[in-house]
Amino acid sequence: MRAVDLIQKKKEGLEHTKEEINFLIEGYIKGEIEDYQMSAWLMAVCFQGLSDKETAYLTQSFINSGDILDFSKISPYIADKHSTGGVGDKVTLVLIPILASLGVYSAKLSGRGLGFTGGTIDKLESIPDFKTELTNEEFFNQIKNIKAAISSQSPNLTPADGKIYALRDVTATVDNKSLICASVVSKKIASGATSIVLDVKYGSGAFIKTPQEAKELGDLMIKTGKLLNRKIDVVISSMEQPLGTGIGNSLEVIEAIEFLKGRYEDDLYEITFELAYKTLLNCNLVKDKNTAKEMFDKAIEGGFALNKLREIIIAQKGVDKVIDDYGLLKRAKNKIEIKADKKGYITSMPALSIAHCAKLLGAGRDKKTDLIDHGAGIVLKKKITDEVNQYDTVMELYWNDVPQNRLREAIEEAKKSFQIQDTNIAKKELIFKTL
Amino acid sequence: MRAVDLIQKKKEGLEHTKEEINFLIEGYIKGEIEDYQMSAWLMAVCFQGLSDKETAYLTQSFINSGDILDFSKISPYIADKHSTGGVGDKVTLVLIPILASLGVYSAKLSGRGLGFTGGTIDKLESIPDFKTELTNEEFFNQIKNIKAAISSQSPNLTPADGKIYALRDVTATVDNKSLICASVVSKKIASGATSIVLDVKYGSGAFIKTPQEAKELGDLMIKTGKLLNRKIDVVISSMEQPLGTGIGNSLEVIEAIEFLKGRYEDDLYEITFELAYKTLLNCNLVKDKNTAKEMFDKAIEGGFALNKLREIIIAQKGVDKVIDDYGLLKRAKNKIEIKADKKGYITSMPALSIAHCAKLLGAGRDKKTDLIDHGAGIVLKKKITDEVNQYDTVMELYWNDVPQNRLREAIEEAKKSFQIQDTNIAKKELIFKTL
Repeated sequence: MRAVDLIQKKKEGLEHTKEEINFLIEGYIKGEIEDYQMSAWLMAVCFQGLSDKETAYLTQSFINSGDILDFSKISPYIADKHSTGGVGDKVTLVLIPILASLGVYSAKLSGRGLGFTGGTIDKLESIPDFKTELTNEEFFNQIKNIKAAISSQSPNLTPADGKIYALRDVTATVDNKSLICASVVSKKIASGATSIVLDVKYGSGAFIKTPQEAKELGDLMIKTGKLLNRKIDVVISSMEQPLGTGIGNSLEVIEAIEFLKGRYEDDLYEITFELAYKTLLNCNLVKDKNTAKEMFDKAIEGGFALNKLREIIIAQKGVDKVIDDYGLLKRAKNKIEIKADKKGYITSMPALSIAHCAKLLGAGRDKKTDLIDHGAGIVLKKKITDEVNQYDTVMELYWNDVPQNRLREAIEEAKKSFQIQDTNIAKKELIFKTL
Repeated sequence: MRAVDLIQKKKEGLEHTKEEINFLIEGYIKGEIEDYQMSAWLMAVCFQGLSDKETAYLTQSFINSGDILDFSKISPYIADKHSTGGVGDKVTLVLIPILASLGVYSAKLSGRGLGFTGGTIDKLESIPDFKTELTNEEFFNQIKNIKAAISSQSPNLTPADGKIYALRDVTATVDNKSLICASVVSKKIASGATSIVLDVKYGSGAFIKTPQEAKELGDLMIKTGKLLNRKIDVVISSMEQPLGTGIGNSLEVIEAIEFLKGRYEDDLYEITFELAYKTLLNCNLVKDKNTAKEMFDKAIEGGFALNKLREIIIAQKGVDKVIDDYGLLKRAKNKIEIKADKKGYITSMPALSIAHCAKLLGAGRDKKTDLIDHGAGIVLKKKITDEVNQYDTVMELYWNDVPQNRLREAIEEAKKSFQIQDTNIAKKELIFKTL
């Protein structure tokens, strides 16, 4: 077998065998296949696509390239959750404590953010001393002891995906659904999950723009799971406006803690519950939605979930007092309020625009090596369909050290990031579909 | 400007500006753009194509990447000829001496062959001591003195094309007409030619399979020439069967010498004359085809062209006595005759099959570093539409040191490489079109 012939084969739109996919991925990891051949193949894949079978072979090949975690000695059910990424998405910070408090063993490996705002790991690092890099052993033991751990992905988990993702990022070959699917699903399976729930987001603030495309990706992920003997559930949700009210690392941690204290936005509640319900079903803990809802609400109202979050923070050496005193989090020194210039209803608030503003304030990064400001970000005081009076605060911007011209740009962006109209619009569904 | 954005742009099918093409090519040569980004871009080009303008920009960028030869002090007209490659194609060895003997300054830079049989440089190296690597200065002086030189391309002529061609070869991105056009035309322009005639071949023995595709490539080459202010003529010719009778390096040199001695096959004469006629027109030496034909025939009949070949061999330090004694060429020790198994007419003789057989005998190479056997090859005793009796020799195979199983394979291939039928077929046109 020769790499050049396999590139030609994909260029012609033909289907690879399992052996061919393995040859490509194993050869690439061993350094026998060069970056320039892999990138040519990836580009051919972007044009010709991969079949469901090929996608499953690629996923399995990614899994085989590194460590495979196994929690079967702890529990037959291990939950994991993944979001394809959105603005203000702090679901993990809420969901994992709730699930663990309900008895679900939850092994969550997360990433840092590239792009507009931080990832879950960045968010957790706004808690002083919180240790986000657990060894496989620490991760395992913590899950055994307190049923939950949230750690950054170890470099030896699906290293083939890691190496290929870095290449895709610089060769304009990111946006192919089979490549995205293999990347996401391989990590979830390699990290030992038996119940995998995926939140596939679409809209201006997501990299998938339409619900149809999100459904295609979701369907493919489920099929891939089936071919690899894993149950995968998918929730397709809208990212037309940010999720919840906080955007930016410590601001999102605060919103998550508030949630667990019983004070939450409807949209964040809706999506978190849906993902929890799917997980509880998969783990055989409930049979119907009503029971799931009772359990979910009790976990919050009884303070069990908040207590679980405290346990996680303590286990991971963080300052758990942040739960009682948000001042202990990494915060911003400066704040400005963006006000409504007229009376009316908020009819649009594009997540992409809000995210761009948050990044200008320092909440995101362009390159892996860029520093992130954990305090910076935005708090939304109004959301789509809310009524506003003139001079009402629509959002608050938070920042530390931002050059004047960049700050001006952020404020301009903020002002352009919502529309006020005289007549209100109908509320759109947050969850498009569950698969 | 960032390479990844330009890859994305081409992936989306958008047109590059001149600056963008230059950024890519200059960046690649400087090592600022990596192989893996160039190969992803090349693959995107294979799917989305390049416009005529983009092709011209790419061609100019290749030219600018290295030396540009200038013969304007010697003559306002400098002829060059290029063939896209075929089996038994020894036209250069015949055409250049004829043109030079008629007063046309001919600067021919050639390549070695990759694939089935050798390139012009390999063929010339079957003449003992023939020096194929001339410096720019030697090349220039020889053309000044005897009006013709045939040298291998210096590494500093269109180095960007050289580097990109090597990458295309291993990433399955060879077969795009804009990339082929830029590669061919840039070399011709950089080597100082003012009159460029291109022989674009199609058929089983060429990499272009249909006359329509050959015409598309030819049209693009002419347009590219126009955009870069060069007159380019194109002859589209068939490569359904090998050209002439000799296939293999010294066998082709012999056929070329025989041609200049007045003993030639019709097909080789036809194509060589057509290319000569176009060149004589471009160099303002003739106004009509009849005069061109008279001049062409006189060059052969009067021995002027043969004498010019002798001058070239002497100037390039080769043993010119090969012209009188073919035994001095690098020859093969062994020969076998392939005979007709029945009476009838030769109705097909696929060039690809013959070429494959010649390669098995040692006449070609797979990798640049492979050694070539200059003596090995095939002489066709019959061609398409020829009548044969049972036991007539159809072809002779020549070889030196070939393992038994490989030789058996070559003989099998030879036997399968022609068809004899009871009724003859109509003769097909060799030249499909001139553009």
